[in-house]
Amino acid sequence: MGSTWGNKFKLSIFGESHGNGIGAVIDGLPAGIKIDLERVQSELNRRAARGNPLATPRKEGDQIEVLSGIFNGKTTGAPLAGLIRNENTRSGDYAKTKDLMRPGHADYAANARYGGFQDYRGGGHFSGRLTAPLVFAGAIAKEMLSVICPELGIGSRIVSIGEVKDTPIEDWKVYQTLIRGFKNPAFPLYHANLEEAMKQAIIAAMEDEDSVGGLVEGFITGLEPGIGNPFFESIESRLSALLFSIPAVKGVTFGAGFEMVSLRGSQTNDGLRINNGQIETLTNHNGGINGGISNGMPIVFQVAFKPTPSIGKEQQTINLANRNNATLKIQGRHDPCIVIRAFPVVEAATAICLADFLL
Amino acid sequence: MGSTWGNKFKLSIFGESHGNGIGAVIDGLPAGIKIDLERVQSELNRRAARGNPLATPRKEGDQIEVLSGIFNGKTTGAPLAGLIRNENTRSGDYAKTKDLMRPGHADYAANARYGGFQDYRGGGHFSGRLTAPLVFAGAIAKEMLSVICPELGIGSRIVSIGEVKDTPIEDWKVYQTLIRGFKNPAFPLYHANLEEAMKQAIIAAMEDEDSVGGLVEGFITGLEPGIGNPFFESIESRLSALLFSIPAVKGVTFGAGFEMVSLRGSQTNDGLRINNGQIETLTNHNGGINGGISNGMPIVFQVAFKPTPSIGKEQQTINLANRNNATLKIQGRHDPCIVIRAFPVVEAATAICLADFLL
Amino acid sequence: MGSTWGNKFKLSIFGESHGNGIGAVIDGLPAGIKIDLERVQSELNRRAARGNPLATPRKEGDQIEVLSGIFNGKTTGAPLAGLIRNENTRSGDYAKTKDLMRPGHADYAANARYGGFQDYRGGGHFSGRLTAPLVFAGAIAKEMLSVICPELGIGSRIVSIGEVKDTPIEDWKVYQTLIRGFKNPAFPLYHANLEEAMKQAIIAAMEDEDSVGGLVEGFITGLEPGIGNPFFESIESRLSALLFSIPAVKGVTFGAGFEMVSLRGSQTNDGLRINNGQIETLTNHNGGINGGISNGMPIVFQVAFKPTPSIGKEQQTINLANRNNATLKIQGRHDPCIVIRAFPVVEAATAICLADFLL
Amino acid sequence: MGSTWGNKFKLSIFGESHGNGIGAVIDGLPAGIKIDLERVQSELNRRAARGNPLATPRKEGDQIEVLSGIFNGKTTGAPLAGLIRNENTRSGDYAKTKDLMRPGHADYAANARYGGFQDYRGGGHFSGRLTAPLVFAGAIAKEMLSVICPELGIGSRIVSIGEVKDTPIEDWKVYQTLIRGFKNPAFPLYHANLEEAMKQAIIAAMEDEDSVGGLVEGFITGLEPGIGNPFFESIESRLSALLFSIPAVKGVTFGAGFEMVSLRGSQTNDGLRINNGQIETLTNHNGGINGGISNGMPIVFQVAFKPTPSIGKEQQTINLANRNNATLKIQGRHDPCIVIRAFPVVEAATAICLADFLL
Repeated sequence: MGSTWGNKFKLSIFGESHGNGIGAVIDGLPAGIKIDLERVQSELNRRAARGNPLATPRKEGDQIEVLSGIFNGKTTGAPLAGLIRNENTRSGDYAKTKDLMRPGHADYAANARYGGFQDYRGGGHFSGRLTAPLVFAGAIAKEMLSVICPELGIGSRIVSIGEVKDTPIEDWKVYQTLIRGFKNPAFPLYHANLEEAMKQAIIAAMEDEDSVGGLVEGFITGLEPGIGNPFFESIESRLSALLFSIPAVKGVTFGAGFEMVSLRGSQTNDGLRINNGQIETLTNHNGGINGGISNGMPIVFQVAFKPTPSIGKEQQTINLANRNNATLKIQGRHDPCIVIRAFPVVEAATAICLADFLL
Repeated sequence: MGSTWGNKFKLSIFGESHGNGIGAVIDGLPAGIKIDLERVQSELNRRAARGNPLATPRKEGDQIEVLSGIFNGKTTGAPLAGLIRNENTRSGDYAKTKDLMRPGHADYAANARYGGFQDYRGGGHFSGRLTAPLVFAGAIAKEMLSVICPELGIGSRIVSIGEVKDTPIEDWKVYQTLIRGFKNPAFPLYHANLEEAMKQAIIAAMEDEDSVGGLVEGFITGLEPGIGNPFFESIESRLSALLFSIPAVKGVTFGAGFEMVSLRGSQTNDGLRINNGQIETLTNHNGGINGGISNGMPIVFQVAFKPTPSIGKEQQTINLANRNNATLKIQGRHDPCIVIRAFPVVEAATAICLADFLL
Repeated sequence: MGSTWGNKFKLSIFGESHGNGIGAVIDGLPAGIKIDLERVQSELNRRAARGNPLATPRKEGDQIEVLSGIFNGKTTGAPLAGLIRNENTRSGDYAKTKDLMRPGHADYAANARYGGFQDYRGGGHFSGRLTAPLVFAGAIAKEMLSVICPELGIGSRIVSIGEVKDTPIEDWKVYQTLIRGFKNPAFPLYHANLEEAMKQAIIAAMEDEDSVGGLVEGFITGLEPGIGNPFFESIESRLSALLFSIPAVKGVTFGAGFEMVSLRGSQTNDGLRINNGQIETLTNHNGGINGGISNGMPIVFQVAFKPTPSIGKEQQTINLANRNNATLKIQGRHDPCIVIRAFPVVEAATAICLADFLL
Repeated sequence: MGSTWGNKFKLSIFGESHGNGIGAVIDGLPAGIKIDLERVQSELNRRAARGNPLATPRKEGDQIEVLSGIFNGKTTGAPLAGLIRNENTRSGDYAKTKDLMRPGHADYAANARYGGFQDYRGGGHFSGRLTAPLVFAGAIAKEMLSVICPELGIGSRIVSIGEVKDTPIEDWKVYQTLIRGFKNPAFPLYHANLEEAMKQAIIAAMEDEDSVGGLVEGFITGLEPGIGNPFFESIESRLSALLFSIPAVKGVTFGAGFEMVSLRGSQTNDGLRINNGQIETLTNHNGGINGGISNGMPIVFQVAFKPTPSIGKEQQTINLANRNNATLKIQGRHDPCIVIRAFPVVEAATAICLADFLL
């Protein structure tokens, strides 16, 4: 339980890092939506590690096969299922450390949850690899949204990696510019000149056999006011639930988020005005959402990624087999900083959330 | 849509600030759970504003009437419905400002969502008053949890109000102490000596016809490892969705949250050890959750409350009736700082979430 | 669990026969729907037993109070909650037979399910009285459908009571006539002349301190083709689930139903034709549904009601307190034939189902 | 929408008759359940048409590949996904009749629902082939039930084919015998001597290029009292929803079903007694269910299958391309009577339903 989501865009993901395959089934798509499978594959490629020297050397093809739900290039209205075969798995890497719980990973919690029957190889179903089906589902959602809501834009930027931080964006109109693209789409920054420093922070962590965290900002432009609900189905509730589904996410804020706790209402309320006949807010501290519902301003949110828990440095842990203390140096092929592969996942989660709201 | 929640502990809340009544229906309770209605009422009283000079002068009785689901003092297994009549409503306060959208409130977004048919009086269904049914449901959840999981503890503390900040708690064992109670349960602080400064921050805001935000930390002790799920039903996903349902919440983090983005894995991974035969982590940066599942450590999370949007200061806004710019000074009776009434709501949301997981 | 239903028209019913009140909460209604509360009350009156000599002498006022969700006569978009206070309860009737399981009733099954903690008075939550909230929800659904789908008609007729049987309707065009009304709306018959014989069957059962079953046919006219889904969300699946929620229902068929099992495809396939530019079927053995989806013909279904299990005749049963065999003559006030009060409930369930499909 | 089901045993099925593959994803399985994949495959083989002269000559391998969720022969607790590749598809059979709506099939309704974008080949997602993923899911459910509830028995028998009818079973103890097996498991009959007559009824229909309907009775033995819920989650509601998901089902009754409408309460109430310390009912007209909850007697239900709509006989229909009347003789390879392949599907639906209740 836990791998099924959605009211209207019903998503079910499956798979384990070293099993036969991973994939997703989407139920609830309207019929007749043209799906550009090359564009879908290119979304998967954005997430994949292929050839990126800053990412895991595991070669993940992430080639999607659509099993159902598309006929003559368009959705049929029946469930759309996609399958990615696992390749290049080296399960032997994991067998010897089966009983050594990797700190910061799901190993110990999953062991308690599943009584030791979980597939431990590469984290099994908890692997970051399961974000590939998420990105696939997000890509399908994007295809659909581009038809039913063409003015909608979904974007993300890297705000910080380690201690290298880009600035907050005060003026919400900036997002309407950013949505058109970044200087380096593979490393989306508000201030492109920070790329080298951020990469150095990753390389430094890698060289220390360590890892580093970072912050991603997601944003949505062109969403009309009046989308969302109060309480349990608020945009914040629905979107945060999806964002916290992404492995390594430990915080989600909307708009000015935690900064608002030390301010006053006169500073954080977003005054309204009519500007050239359009209703808009003066500021966007609420991140485009009031009462769980869009107000027409860009939806802006921040997602905190912790450092990848897989590190080569020696760590203190336990051996569950003999319930003894132990030490562990994690071998295998890992990402020193997940952020550079995670921002497309943030966008995918956003697209899935919007698809569910806008259907 | 938006006021129904839960897989097993199914909750439906209803009501508007100035309507006939507010309440909740809970479906899924096991039969035979003893419900102490005085304790339930006392939870509602914690949230109510009665007589608190720092809160709204609206006198809210918040007297709960149980309509069904309890027989001879115990749950019957049938839906438990509770009703709170609205009293002391002065709807006239709102009629004159019906078309003036209150900045920071749901007014404009709700107007777009419901085409102007929403009950605008006092925010209608978006009112903070709807947290009373949440607290009622949370109190029922607590009653149930005290029977099915007696070692469980649910607590919260005020971490900051405006710029007055309490310190983070590094040692997770502290939560096992805090769960036993606070010096002033009505103002739960790690460092009780900060109470006066925090109250002054509220009074200062009140005197300026302004409001102020704050930070609440929630925590759960005594939760066994192995509770939760990966992905969409992770503890983080489920709990954040409930917490973001609370009006004025704009951020949720777990464990070290946003601090982790600038750290390295060697700093944030929580090493494991066997201590007196017990498995525990050395630190608790992950807030007791790995892979969406409890690891046996205290669950710790932070909830950012923005300043109450209702302020007496003049604000720039629009008049929807004539689509003109306008100014607004909000009359009526409001809370200058929601935090001092919100921490019981955070606990209630936590109890509801746990009830759903543990049933 | 079991008292919550719906994807879009989310319904939660609550209450027990002899508790404080019964009611329903509906979440998901669009805003701005005009609700005629007199018409809603009149639907409740159709189900109520007031003054009907063939029904229980218990006087059920069934006066609905709307607690929320309506403002200025229209839906607000927030949950609509309705409450009916229980009156004229004579719980003493039940106390003495608490441990004697009434055959045909839920007593023994509920006792096993709820460990004896269920409210046993008058069947508690299992009481036919809980169909009042269903009828309330159905009446709200009808109000909504009359706005969003004005050409839709929902009707029902009594097909049989005991051995007195009306004829099947072969020509689907007849339903377009019946939808405009029956000679006696309180006793809707295709052949009105059967009313007396049916009433005599009820009286005969009453005089024998017995009860009698009957068959209700429900129908929907004016539903456009293309509503519904394959498999688990087919019209048949969704509607049958609601119909089987009505106490005493033991069978549901669509179209020619069980007659089809002994026929051939050439007899039961409904040929298609263009008639005056309209697509229609020659016959309607499939009851207006193919593949779970409406085909534009009247939706027709039959609902089998068993005889009311409460009878005055002596019955063999057990005493759960001492686990001995026992006999029981049921006292209290009961309906000798539920059918004459149940057809409005069938319509209500149908309206609720359609509301969920058409939102 | 429509292909996802379940509260705890969450099932998502996908695929089209002539697409790349069909399959199912099951979320919610506990970890550590041993899965005998040969037994699972044998359930699929029961449904498959291979070599049966009374079934379609299309050779369906129905070989299942498990993609995830099983590790070392046991469930991992992660979603279990299974894939069946389509083989032996002759799509050309369908292209020429694309615009001719097959009477009794979903063609016209689906066309209205999906705007013509549905995969029309062999009925697409509406094909009876989609019962293979249902049987797969049912087989997994059976594996699980055999571990968590080993005393449970799920069975079915053919009651009638065309006008050849087996007798009703009055004595509920008979089901405890039947559950141990039938003389010919491939043709399960209470009176085995009817097999030849039933087969002749099928052959006669086949020779006439026609088809014939039939009745299947499902039953559950060994289910403890107290399983189920009132109202929307009653056993009847949940099970009927699943049974009506099976293509060609047009009626579902429980216990004595439609016979009860003409009887009296004194005839249909099932008296209770203590027999050798066990509580049992004298009769089982209620089919083992009261108030939606099991009472410890065998659960018995009947499922009406209409004749297969695909027949070679000429039928009147329409050509949607030119909106003209037309005639149609269906070519291709079809089953003259679905019943002989459907009873394993009835059992699968039953197993899925029980898995959801008993988890």
